[in-house]
Amino acid sequence: MSSILRGNKITVSVFGQSHSDCIGAVIDGLPAGIELDADKIAAFMRRRAPGQSSFSTRRREADIPKVISGLVDGTTCGAPVAAKIDNVNAKSSDYDDYKYLPRPSHSDYTAYVKYGGNNDIAGGGQFSGRLTAPLCWAGAVCMQLLEEKGVKIKAHIYSVKDVRDDPFEGETLFDDDTELDPFFPVISRFKGDRMKTVIDIARQNSDSVGGVIECAVTGLPAGLGEPMFDGIENVIAKNMFAIPAVKGIEFGSGFDGTLKYGSQNNDDFTVKDGEVKTRTNNHGGILGGITSGMPVIFRVAIKPTPSIGLEQTSVNLQTMKEESITVKGRHDPCIVPRAVPAVEAVAAITVLDLLL
Amino acid sequence: MSSILRGNKITVSVFGQSHSDCIGAVIDGLPAGIELDADKIAAFMRRRAPGQSSFSTRRREADIPKVISGLVDGTTCGAPVAAKIDNVNAKSSDYDDYKYLPRPSHSDYTAYVKYGGNNDIAGGGQFSGRLTAPLCWAGAVCMQLLEEKGVKIKAHIYSVKDVRDDPFEGETLFDDDTELDPFFPVISRFKGDRMKTVIDIARQNSDSVGGVIECAVTGLPAGLGEPMFDGIENVIAKNMFAIPAVKGIEFGSGFDGTLKYGSQNNDDFTVKDGEVKTRTNNHGGILGGITSGMPVIFRVAIKPTPSIGLEQTSVNLQTMKEESITVKGRHDPCIVPRAVPAVEAVAAITVLDLLL
Amino acid sequence: MSSILRGNKITVSVFGQSHSDCIGAVIDGLPAGIELDADKIAAFMRRRAPGQSSFSTRRREADIPKVISGLVDGTTCGAPVAAKIDNVNAKSSDYDDYKYLPRPSHSDYTAYVKYGGNNDIAGGGQFSGRLTAPLCWAGAVCMQLLEEKGVKIKAHIYSVKDVRDDPFEGETLFDDDTELDPFFPVISRFKGDRMKTVIDIARQNSDSVGGVIECAVTGLPAGLGEPMFDGIENVIAKNMFAIPAVKGIEFGSGFDGTLKYGSQNNDDFTVKDGEVKTRTNNHGGILGGITSGMPVIFRVAIKPTPSIGLEQTSVNLQTMKEESITVKGRHDPCIVPRAVPAVEAVAAITVLDLLL
Amino acid sequence: MSSILRGNKITVSVFGQSHSDCIGAVIDGLPAGIELDADKIAAFMRRRAPGQSSFSTRRREADIPKVISGLVDGTTCGAPVAAKIDNVNAKSSDYDDYKYLPRPSHSDYTAYVKYGGNNDIAGGGQFSGRLTAPLCWAGAVCMQLLEEKGVKIKAHIYSVKDVRDDPFEGETLFDDDTELDPFFPVISRFKGDRMKTVIDIARQNSDSVGGVIECAVTGLPAGLGEPMFDGIENVIAKNMFAIPAVKGIEFGSGFDGTLKYGSQNNDDFTVKDGEVKTRTNNHGGILGGITSGMPVIFRVAIKPTPSIGLEQTSVNLQTMKEESITVKGRHDPCIVPRAVPAVEAVAAITVLDLLL
Repeated sequence: MSSILRGNKITVSVFGQSHSDCIGAVIDGLPAGIELDADKIAAFMRRRAPGQSSFSTRRREADIPKVISGLVDGTTCGAPVAAKIDNVNAKSSDYDDYKYLPRPSHSDYTAYVKYGGNNDIAGGGQFSGRLTAPLCWAGAVCMQLLEEKGVKIKAHIYSVKDVRDDPFEGETLFDDDTELDPFFPVISRFKGDRMKTVIDIARQNSDSVGGVIECAVTGLPAGLGEPMFDGIENVIAKNMFAIPAVKGIEFGSGFDGTLKYGSQNNDDFTVKDGEVKTRTNNHGGILGGITSGMPVIFRVAIKPTPSIGLEQTSVNLQTMKEESITVKGRHDPCIVPRAVPAVEAVAAITVLDLLL
Repeated sequence: MSSILRGNKITVSVFGQSHSDCIGAVIDGLPAGIELDADKIAAFMRRRAPGQSSFSTRRREADIPKVISGLVDGTTCGAPVAAKIDNVNAKSSDYDDYKYLPRPSHSDYTAYVKYGGNNDIAGGGQFSGRLTAPLCWAGAVCMQLLEEKGVKIKAHIYSVKDVRDDPFEGETLFDDDTELDPFFPVISRFKGDRMKTVIDIARQNSDSVGGVIECAVTGLPAGLGEPMFDGIENVIAKNMFAIPAVKGIEFGSGFDGTLKYGSQNNDDFTVKDGEVKTRTNNHGGILGGITSGMPVIFRVAIKPTPSIGLEQTSVNLQTMKEESITVKGRHDPCIVPRAVPAVEAVAAITVLDLLL
Repeated sequence: MSSILRGNKITVSVFGQSHSDCIGAVIDGLPAGIELDADKIAAFMRRRAPGQSSFSTRRREADIPKVISGLVDGTTCGAPVAAKIDNVNAKSSDYDDYKYLPRPSHSDYTAYVKYGGNNDIAGGGQFSGRLTAPLCWAGAVCMQLLEEKGVKIKAHIYSVKDVRDDPFEGETLFDDDTELDPFFPVISRFKGDRMKTVIDIARQNSDSVGGVIECAVTGLPAGLGEPMFDGIENVIAKNMFAIPAVKGIEFGSGFDGTLKYGSQNNDDFTVKDGEVKTRTNNHGGILGGITSGMPVIFRVAIKPTPSIGLEQTSVNLQTMKEESITVKGRHDPCIVPRAVPAVEAVAAITVLDLLL
Repeated sequence: MSSILRGNKITVSVFGQSHSDCIGAVIDGLPAGIELDADKIAAFMRRRAPGQSSFSTRRREADIPKVISGLVDGTTCGAPVAAKIDNVNAKSSDYDDYKYLPRPSHSDYTAYVKYGGNNDIAGGGQFSGRLTAPLCWAGAVCMQLLEEKGVKIKAHIYSVKDVRDDPFEGETLFDDDTELDPFFPVISRFKGDRMKTVIDIARQNSDSVGGVIECAVTGLPAGLGEPMFDGIENVIAKNMFAIPAVKGIEFGSGFDGTLKYGSQNNDDFTVKDGEVKTRTNNHGGILGGITSGMPVIFRVAIKPTPSIGLEQTSVNLQTMKEESITVKGRHDPCIVPRAVPAVEAVAAITVLDLLL
């Protein structure tokens, strides 16, 4: 049941491989009567589409999801809403070399073992970052419902390599109308420029860099979520690791919080506009798995893109001998910017499921 | 469905509150014919029991789980295996004050909202760290089955506040016979002593500290796990957040990996004893959600114990006014040492489920 | 995951074997703030308890469930509500003979194969009808919540062998205040007496009889349930087969409906008290998996008790030769009366889950 | 989560409405390396396609599923296998009249309530029997895997109205090579002719008839399935009710078994070819939810097609007044023959999931 995000109400089944006829997703459990805003969805999809900037891969695709069921006159009717995106412009032969020579830190080897050599190697098959396209579509649909409920989800590039953006601080960001750049969302334009320089250097060196994405969910009421195994942290974490290259997640002060004393990390309660709030938000909006009414804040670690142009060492799975490998083609030196909408999308699906 | 860890084969239902008659767990899905080793289980339970050292709370409990179903002559018979632990020595009245005056960074407030004031405040109710006792019992049972399959799970205190132990490095640790101290497991005794000093200082200051626990799972074959939503990272992450105070998780090089270039973070393949391995293990034994045959390595962040003896600010939920609060009683200044077996236990349940 | 009823909100984990220390259940997902009425629950439990009449087995048990977690002062607190029932008065040695000589139409043989001979043979182990006791407890708890929502669940003995009671007809039964006998619930006392005669004859012949139980759920709003795989029929059917000896289920006109023309079986719509209703209820209150607002009506087939005093033929699993077998002990010649509360209980859990 | 069959390994997500762009399904969890036999699948699909005989609706469709992901060179690669069937030849306007005038015993009314009037009324929307096409595709795929494991699934028309075919008896049917007519499968050709006469009469009277389908699964080893909530009866029953018009299910002797004495209904054990078998198969191959090694036998009740040409009474949902309704168009007077492959398909998915 690998490709299915099962919520309590919402289920998203993703299908497709990088080079199959189509990729797509089926969303089950959406309320009926929602008129989908195709323009908003398309705008959201563009944020993860390749070729938007000099910072991403050149493979260009229309990537326009076509809804094939679940709507009557553009409005949800209660049936599962399915969409497909046709795959075009794919050169499968580029990947023939990797079938028995797995690319380091890609899933080529583990997929080879798991599927007994039957895995689809072309473009990374079902492990391709391309599969975040249907995820983003599903997320964009869910985000539309969340907006109607007053819930906002916003992520930014928290860091690229060692260049760190300003952090989200409490609710301030969301109270004002500051819009982040949709394609390279940072709070500090100055830090953003330095990040771009770091990415450029990596590209020039045929190398790659990773980074951290910070995401905030505001507008959630207190009391959502469950203790222990079905807390908000549990389900957000589970779902975020569906995004390729995610290797870590932390909530609130997270790992840095372990460097503090309890007296520094605890969040004093206070009253604001007649509601219980906390003065600081080291708990990231979640206590005991349940929302506190403060913004839910989390960060995910995105490893450096494993596709690099430098020579590396692999093992030929037929001869069982080491061989050098140089990954061909043009690849993103940093997928962090394009992963931002994927993080928002997964957050949207997860949070909507909690709210329904 | 808050208190149920649902695997594909194994399901663990935890029940009880800090001060209810009993706490316990039901394990469904264990193979029949396993003779449980009560001594091993008891030894494992002692590692999380309070009062083992000067570093933990004084509340002493027998904490001996009694198996009440699922065995015939000490051997599993296919029926769910249930155990209970009687609660004794609990002073519920200690907690009356907190019903309307939630302790900062505890779940008192969120539970109050979620359950409309009906939550069990005594000892933190179902949110109490005490509920890790049945988890540890279930984990100890699963660990016994894992050992028979050649899978080992070992965790150590990776850091307490800013004092960091030596890290696990590849499989070396598990190839030798070095045993870690069961009650304060560290690789470097020198670093361990410094950690204890840090904890002592926190205690003297009526404060608390947190830390990071690193866990390694060795002996897993390559090819376990699923892509996307049911990868090993997804399920380990989901389950780890069931342990109170966990605020983050990372696999392999994790967040630190985002500081490297791809060429530094990628793991070259090599051949060892006729099997494909990687020279380094920045991927933490998992690629595309699937095991690579290298040790699965992950770290969880444990926030500083929220119970501190210092004065803090809360809000009286009846008057909706701020009030100062000083948490009474003796509490662990650092729960990291006692959380180590809980991390191992949750890992054991999760991994056994993947293997069955 | 055999012993867990997983709903969307409510999960019931059952544990125990006929002769283990205890049997019991854990209910997860109940709302907080419900004050459980122990007397009502005990009264409900008595309906399935053995020894209530001359029509059931003589093994007498207190069968009083003791709640061991999930309550604060008798009121649900949001934590899982667990109860245990101690097993007493059990003679395990009665069953030693059956370990390798499976009783016909019991689960002795299939359990032997599934669990490799490690199954608990005493009293049927986890397959025992005794496990309906925790189910009834969980159902009684759920029924209390349903009553507050105006939902009633009522079952009667529809038939014993070929003696058939009057059927439920539409909502009439529930509009009046007719109470059915809790221990032998029939609509027609005359038919009930004939059923008792049939059971007595079976007993005198050391034989057994089965029957059909009809159950009605009233007070449900229209629009509950889901199409296809999660319709009300799907989930009620799935859960009912958890009751030992159930071999069939039908909704509305069911199998008899296949003997009619569409023009006879279709239910014309009409308006009653301003609401859309149907004139007849051949659809059993469910169309397309979704409630219509009419009473949900279903019937389950209970096979004749497999334990009979007559000589039968089995196979010795050690010699693999046929052997004759005569099941010892005193057994219910007809478990239908005691299965009625079990059917109501399972219906209550299922329906409450749909309503939450 | 209405349109998702969730097994332990296999998950099938169905999407589409009678008149949406496409209908289809996504199968997750199939093993990699299976070469799908498109011809066999197409042959199976033809059995449920309309217009095959004079006994079914005239709407003709290509109904050829196109696999859009999950294959590499026709072989499964481990990614979800998705297929779509384009909808053509659909006249949506035929159904405008029913939006506020629900057809008796269809799901028009319950869908209207559940989805607040947003339901897709055209052709019955997602409730249409047309959605069994993707189910049959998924079942045909699973059946191919089952055949390789020596498991056969075969269903026949057990009855149409009051005309009853010969029953399956033990394993005899499957030992010989008798092939049943794929489009009107009956054991007795004589009974089959009488059934056709009954259907013809219904058609001439603008009426409809239902019937019963009997299905047998042979080749399953003993010991499959789980006790209580996840027994084979539970999961088969749950999934069968996904087929529109199914109103009942029984295993083995089922409801008729309740008319017998225990001594008649119990199945004596015997030894055959060195294996434990039973002399009769009143238990339908399942004891305690677990397979006994005998054929799994069950029957499902299919209600008379609710679409009839005769005048009926409905309620206008806008005026809340009764109105007469005559359902237009040409409809199957009996869907039982076309439902046979759907029953086989659902059985195949369910059983394959148990075997993996």
